[in-house]
Amino acid sequence: MKAQFIVIEGLEGAGKSTAIATVKAVLESHGITDVITTREPGGTPVAERIRAITKEEVDGDPLSDTAECLLMYAARAQLVDNLIKPALAKGTWVIGDRHDLSSRAYQGGGRKLGKLVDDISDVTLQGFKPDLTLYMDIDPAQGLARAAGRGELDRIERQALDFFERTREAYLRLAAADDSIVTIDAGRELEVVTAQIRDSLNAHLGA
Amino acid sequence: MKAQFIVIEGLEGAGKSTAIATVKAVLESHGITDVITTREPGGTPVAERIRAITKEEVDGDPLSDTAECLLMYAARAQLVDNLIKPALAKGTWVIGDRHDLSSRAYQGGGRKLGKLVDDISDVTLQGFKPDLTLYMDIDPAQGLARAAGRGELDRIERQALDFFERTREAYLRLAAADDSIVTIDAGRELEVVTAQIRDSLNAHLGA
Repeated sequence: MKAQFIVIEGLEGAGKSTAIATVKAVLESHGITDVITTREPGGTPVAERIRAITKEEVDGDPLSDTAECLLMYAARAQLVDNLIKPALAKGTWVIGDRHDLSSRAYQGGGRKLGKLVDDISDVTLQGFKPDLTLYMDIDPAQGLARAAGRGELDRIERQALDFFERTREAYLRLAAADDSIVTIDAGRELEVVTAQIRDSLNAHLGA
Repeated sequence: MKAQFIVIEGLEGAGKSTAIATVKAVLESHGITDVITTREPGGTPVAERIRAITKEEVDGDPLSDTAECLLMYAARAQLVDNLIKPALAKGTWVIGDRHDLSSRAYQGGGRKLGKLVDDISDVTLQGFKPDLTLYMDIDPAQGLARAAGRGELDRIERQALDFFERTREAYLRLAAADDSIVTIDAGRELEVVTAQIRDSLNAHLGA
């Protein structure tokens, strides 16, 4: 089977890390072991430096919404050109912890940039997209409570709840409009969530 | 007079720093002393961090052309939103060492990204543009010889000569198509160049 790019998406605390482990296990059960994982923003040395700029607050120079969006896409362009495309070309599967859908949901929905994000996305990615995206859907309050339990929140995680509610709405809307995005009910018990991921991925792989 | 944004553009070694000093002196002769200067990419703490990423070479992770372009616009968005627009709004004139025209010339022409740059520029700047741009036109070989005399060349300055020739062609083409851009023959003797700048700026200011 041709190597694929599979992305896990969702709000903080939706269980993305556990989902990635499940995806890896399912791929392995299909005999697919040449697999790497990436995260966004980040995933290459330069993209990680860009990530650091998006995560910090600088006194007197708050990151503008437009600059934030462009940084996300700069990191994404770097990751796609220097890691994802070369990996897929040599037969390595790629599991992504976030990708373009995050920008469309967080910057497009959460920050209300809408069309600006769509335009930058189209220009940057030129049609490149994941083969499958699993969107881990969770109530923002539930997700944030989990994320807060893990330690200090970063600049984006400290946004007000309505920011995450707008982000979730955008996620749901975009997932409904794209056949390559499967919505997983991430608010359920772990075994149920794992079964949903396993079944979706098996169906996608034609098992 | 309403505060204005005046930009100096051109290849390395075209004499931008001297031109900025001349612009300042001319503005002062008009009684305009509330003036700041900026540089691009950079000009705010966050934008300077983005600049650093564009200037360095990272082993095994070369900055992709698209990522470079997006970083330039991320820095520009940050500078426009957090420094240039607020300054103009409170009556402070702004002299810019490079702005959007640099991206259109270097990334659009030099790197041949063309329409990608135009699209990102339109989306990012939403019609914001300098009141006057002075483009310091110089033969790339002459400019690079001057720049090299100043010390070590950075990542972009180490490009081959044909990159700078394409960049210059784009500068000239864009300048010819926009009434707010004045081309200065920067290959002449210093006094002649200074007189061209002074005359262009005086004409612009209606003196």
